[in-house]
Formats: sequence, C-alpha cells, structure tokens
Amino acid sequence: MNKCWLVCAECRKQIPLALIGRCDCGGTLLVEYDLERAKHRLNSVPLSQRVTSLWRYSDMLPIQDEDKIVSLGEGWTPLLRMPNLEQFLNIHSISVKREEQNPSGSFKARGFSVAVSLLHERGIKKVTVPSNGNAASALAAYAARANMESYLFVPKDCPGLIVEESGNYGAHVYLVDGFIHDAGRIIEEGREAEGWFNVGTLKEPGRVEGKKTMGYEIAEQLNWQLPDVIIYPTGGGSGVIGLWKAFHEMKGLGLVSGEFPRIVSVQEEGCTPIVDAFLNVNESACLNKEVTSAPTGLRVPQPPDGSLIVRILRKVNGEVVAVTKEEITAAQQMMGRLGISSSPEGASTLAGLIKLVEAGSISSHESVVMFNTSHAMKYLDWTNALPYPIIRSYDEFVSKR
Amino acid sequence: MNKCWLVCAECRKQIPLALIGRCDCGGTLLVEYDLERAKHRLNSVPLSQRVTSLWRYSDMLPIQDEDKIVSLGEGWTPLLRMPNLEQFLNIHSISVKREEQNPSGSFKARGFSVAVSLLHERGIKKVTVPSNGNAASALAAYAARANMESYLFVPKDCPGLIVEESGNYGAHVYLVDGFIHDAGRIIEEGREAEGWFNVGTLKEPGRVEGKKTMGYEIAEQLNWQLPDVIIYPTGGGSGVIGLWKAFHEMKGLGLVSGEFPRIVSVQEEGCTPIVDAFLNVNESACLNKEVTSAPTGLRVPQPPDGSLIVRILRKVNGEVVAVTKEEITAAQQMMGRLGISSSPEGASTLAGLIKLVEAGSISSHESVVMFNTSHAMKYLDWTNALPYPIIRSYDEFVSKR
Repeated sequence: MNKCWLVCAECRKQIPLALIGRCDCGGTLLVEYDLERAKHRLNSVPLSQRVTSLWRYSDMLPIQDEDKIVSLGEGWTPLLRMPNLEQFLNIHSISVKREEQNPSGSFKARGFSVAVSLLHERGIKKVTVPSNGNAASALAAYAARANMESYLFVPKDCPGLIVEESGNYGAHVYLVDGFIHDAGRIIEEGREAEGWFNVGTLKEPGRVEGKKTMGYEIAEQLNWQLPDVIIYPTGGGSGVIGLWKAFHEMKGLGLVSGEFPRIVSVQEEGCTPIVDAFLNVNESACLNKEVTSAPTGLRVPQPPDGSLIVRILRKVNGEVVAVTKEEITAAQQMMGRLGISSSPEGASTLAGLIKLVEAGSISSHESVVMFNTSHAMKYLDWTNALPYPIIRSYDEFVSKR
Repeated sequence: MNKCWLVCAECRKQIPLALIGRCDCGGTLLVEYDLERAKHRLNSVPLSQRVTSLWRYSDMLPIQDEDKIVSLGEGWTPLLRMPNLEQFLNIHSISVKREEQNPSGSFKARGFSVAVSLLHERGIKKVTVPSNGNAASALAAYAARANMESYLFVPKDCPGLIVEESGNYGAHVYLVDGFIHDAGRIIEEGREAEGWFNVGTLKEPGRVEGKKTMGYEIAEQLNWQLPDVIIYPTGGGSGVIGLWKAFHEMKGLGLVSGEFPRIVSVQEEGCTPIVDAFLNVNESACLNKEVTSAPTGLRVPQPPDGSLIVRILRKVNGEVVAVTKEEITAAQQMMGRLGISSSPEGASTLAGLIKLVEAGSISSHESVVMFNTSHAMKYLDWTNALPYPIIRSYDEFVSKR
C-alpha cells in the first residue's frame, strides 16, 4: 500500500488523504508520498516489466486497493519527434505528446482514471463536473466503466461532438447558458440536494495525480532526461500543477536531476487570466464580459487556483504566451499537414512555440515538448441542434430534468 | 536487414519483394520471412526493451531502411478486459482491442504506416486509395508525414467527419457517386496518367503486414497465450489475412503453440459477400443493386480476394455472422454504456458475439477478443455539405480537379 497524505500548497499543513481539494486556509491540497517507501517499491519491479498505461506509476498514485482501479487503457501515449518542424523552426528537438490517443480521445482521461478510482474505492455512485467538453466526456466514460451515474454541465456553445460523445457514454448532459464557472455554480447549488460528487478542477486530489503522469512519461520516454521547454495549453491549469509535481517527485525519487523544464502556458486571446496574472496585468481571473475566446478547454475565465499556477511558472523560469484564434487555426492546419490531428488547444502550443522562437526565447540547441491534448475532429462545427436541455440555474435543472 | 520475399497464396511461387499485390496466376502475394534469421534478431533485443508501437516487431516487417520508417505512434493499443460484459454474457474472458486509440483514430493506421514506409523507401511521392473513410484518413496522415501527395476517393455517402479529417491532413479528396469498388475503378482509370501509386487493399504487401501486428500484440499482451475466439469486423478482409499470417509466423518463431484462435468474420446485413461465400450461398462478391448496408468500412461489395478470406476462416474453424443495422446500433449503445467509444464496425463485433453466445458457439470457459476499430464519434451524422467535388468517373475527376 502506498503511504500518502494531503498537504496544503499554501500553509503546508498536512492532513490524511481525503476527497477534498481545499485547505481551511484556502490553499489547494495536493498529495504527498513517502518517497523512501515508493522508491523501494519502484525498484522492486522494473518499469520495463510494467503495464503500458499510466498505472505503471501506481507506486506514486494515491490508490490503496488495486481492485478498485478504473482503467480504460489511458496514458503511455506516444511522444513523437517532429523532424519537419525541427528543420522549419531550426530547433534541435521538438516532440509532440499525442494525448489525443487516450481513451475518450483526450488527455482528460488521465485525471479521471485516477479520480474515479479514488471515488470507486469509497463507493461513490453519483458524479458531476463542469466542463468545456473533454473533461465531461472523460468523466462520462470512466463513470460508465465504474457503474456510476454522471451529470455533466457544459456551456451551450461547447463542441457539439464532444457533448454528443458524452451522451453516448450514458451521461445526463445539461447545456449551460454561460461559462464553465457558471456550470460550476449550478453544480454547487444542487450538489447536496442531488448527492453529487463534484469532480471539478482541484475539487479533489485525483485529477492532478492523473495529470502528473504526463510528466513521468515524457521523462521516461526521453530516458530520464527532461526536455528544456514544455509548452502546455492552459485552462484550469491542473496540468501545470501535475507536471511540476512530477518533476519534484522524480527528483526526490532519484529518477531525474538538474534543472526543471521551463513550462510555457499558452492561452487564447480573449480569455487569458493566467497570462495576465503572470505579467502582473491583472488578478488570475477575467470578467465574463471580457471573454471573447472560442469555446475550448482554454476558455476558463476563473481558474480555481491561478496564483498557484503563476507561482509554479515563476519557479521553473516559465513563460506565458497569448495566441490569437487565427494563429491557432493556422497552427492546426500546419499540424494537419504534418500528419497530426490537433485540437485547438493542442495546436495552440505550436502557435505559442512559433511566437517563442520569433521572440528568441528558445535556442536552437534546446529540446521542446508540446502537448496535443485532443483530436481536431472533435471540434468540427456541429450544426445539429443538441438534444439536451439548456439551463441557467439549478432551478432550471430541476424543472427541465 | 530482414530477409523476406513475396509468395503467392495460390500457386506458392516465390518472387523478390516488390510493391505488387497479385501473382501472374491471380493469387494474392504475401510477404514471407527467413524465420531463423528473424528468430535470432528477435532474441537479441528482448521485446520488453523495444518501442511500444507496432515497430517493436520490425524484425518481422518488410522494411530494409530504418530511417525510412514512417511512424506516427501506431500500434501497441490497449487490450482491455470487460468484466461487466463477461458477467452479462457468462464468458470467462472478453477483451476489447482498442484500435481507435491509434493515430488517425482507427486501426487503418497500422497498414498505412508499413505501406507508406515501403513506398517511402522507394521514393514514391504520389499516393491514392479507394476507401469507405478510415483508410483514406490514415493514408492522408501518413502521406503528410512522409511529404507525399495523397488523392482520396470515397463514396459520397461515407462518414463526413472522416472525410473532413482527411482534408485536414492536406489530402486531395474526391467524393464518388458509387461504392468503394467504383472508387477503385476511377483510380485504375487515372493511375498511369496521374502517376498515382494505388495503396488499395491487397494492391501491395505493406498493409497486410501492418495489420498482422494486431495478432502479435494480442498474443504478447496475453503472455503468448492466444485467445480461443477473435471476432473481427470484415470489409476488404486484409485484417483476417494479417491475423492468420501472424499466428503462422509466431508459431514458426516459437512464440506460440497449440490451436489457432477461431476467427469470426462479422458483416452487416445488406452487404455480406464473405458470409455468403463461407456459407456457399454465393460467390465472394455481391452485386451493387443488392447493397443496402450502411456506408461504413463493412460495406465492401467486392472484396479483392474473398476466397482467400473464406479459406482462412475454414482453416481456423472460424465462423461468419451477419448482423443487422439495428443490432449494431444497440451494440454501439451498449459499448458506450461500458465506457467505450465504438464505431459501427467495432460494435458489430459485440453484436456478433451476442449472436454467437445465443447460438451456443462460444462456451463460458473460453476467451474472446473483439476489435474496436474506430471511434463512435467519427460516424456521427454530419449534415454540412462537404466542400469536395462529387465524381462518377476519371473524366469527371479531370474536369472538376
């Protein structure tokens, strides 16, 4: 059994592992492990003999009962070198982490495999999430696998195909007349009355733990040499926390050494709370009326813990980049021409890379990893009217259910 | 370097490896290897230390120049146990091979990775394929990766999202007013004038070689114990040939022993040439006017070598099952409720399994592997008019290009 507990990212208070996301002081709670014990377990079975899913790192995941693991074959996605792009941008090494090859076609599978496993261990049967699409379909898939009922709340302008996919997993889907935090508000309004467990970003410790396996995987796939730069599309930002956590843990386990990669957060112009906060322009939240970006995973006007993301970016000498819708579209087209089906969020990392290279922020001898978080086709314009109720509040949920 | 050559499946004549698909006698040409040499190479580097893509079996693939391998991260897809389904159907072991987790979201990636690598070795720059969708998008992706131009010909009623995906990879897309063999005819009419290489089913040896890695993978993932039954959705049938080839080769290499799995070919009512031929109802081709099945990969009215498929099915004590559109839809829904996004072709294997269990063809102590060939969402109804020319002949291709 893994020995782990929660620790507050702000006040450092330690408490036993539980399905909560926030400390009394308001800080985000993260899982911490007994590294000596984990090291011993890691050494007892070589990684080369382990499952080729994210569960190969189960010694550093917070599940106690292996039988309760809810897996659909997530993680251990290809890390693909991009020779044409390296030549074009004159960068020594550029790789794409093909996260769209996960179950449910996106990187969200990782977080929900671990989170739903934790819930399954505790017998929870009714789950919910506010989402811009891919988190919803991932929760729907894992909940289906674990015989849980799922309630999904997504902005009504989100990619129709992803919403449809969620319905195919048997979820109860509701379209929210608002943004992802409006969806989150409706959930909080109804949570107690409905008996829902909210698996929203940073509401429980599992999703960050699942996301962190992306960090372990790129390290292992690069023979434990971390890349110089990681370009990451940032919405709620749990991936940034996960990557940073992975680097720390791997250092503690003796798996990697040296400098951490510079993490670059990419956001779309029209909703850039993390970019603004990093540049000290603004608090790490933007107001609804200012939001003009596309309805993708990048559109999170009020990230749950933006200040933690900014702190991490500063610690790793990271950067932020805002890219326009047009730059994202051009990058998507370029990725397609290189044989990669790339979602707007995934392609935003290429748009960001191009800007960084132009600005001289990346040297030609450096190595870069970009995350392709989902398939292009999930975002194709879906003109059919979606067969789900549109709601603005929990009251409307109750009346339209 | 691997030592291999072509051998005719009919007259057994051997000829040097070349990019051809048919012997002078009319038989299908398949690749044969120097197994002693391959065994030596296989033993020199343990599989556990190899790449987790289909190229882990490169000792049994016909590529001579490793630098010419065109890879996007294909193969080594999860083989997922389905405990809920096992309980429901009272079968000891049921697994789904999650082929939708390949690049381009389908099992077609395998064949085209190997085929395009072979073409790349020989400097070919212009490729084409007739397809019901997923072969087109896979060729488009691999051609893009290898800097080749691709021309795709798909029936105009094929899944719009897959056609759109192909366009995103930069392919030249043409919608054919007819079936896949009509598309094939148009290609043959224009092939010489246009300088196209036709990568259609059984036109060259690479695609079967790529597909056969599915057989190696399920064997390795099951610790070299082959399953009792494999249920395979059958269109052109190169997958059946590939699986059978894999079993033979693995036996020759000493990797497996005992009986070969019973392969079950599933087709959709309304286009069942393989089912009919196996049951001696008909030749292994159905006439256009009889075709009433949905526009999926299962709809191949005239398989290039149906008699070889039937011979293989008989050799392995296989079976055939025809399922209705309604049964496929119900199975898709069931797969979704189990957390798996399943294409009609993929879900047809569950529809087939249910029929086999009802008929008593599978005992409760047996182990079954089903192939989920693609994502459900790629087949969602796409009502937008596709921005590609609709053609009926090569002349129309020339006039509408």
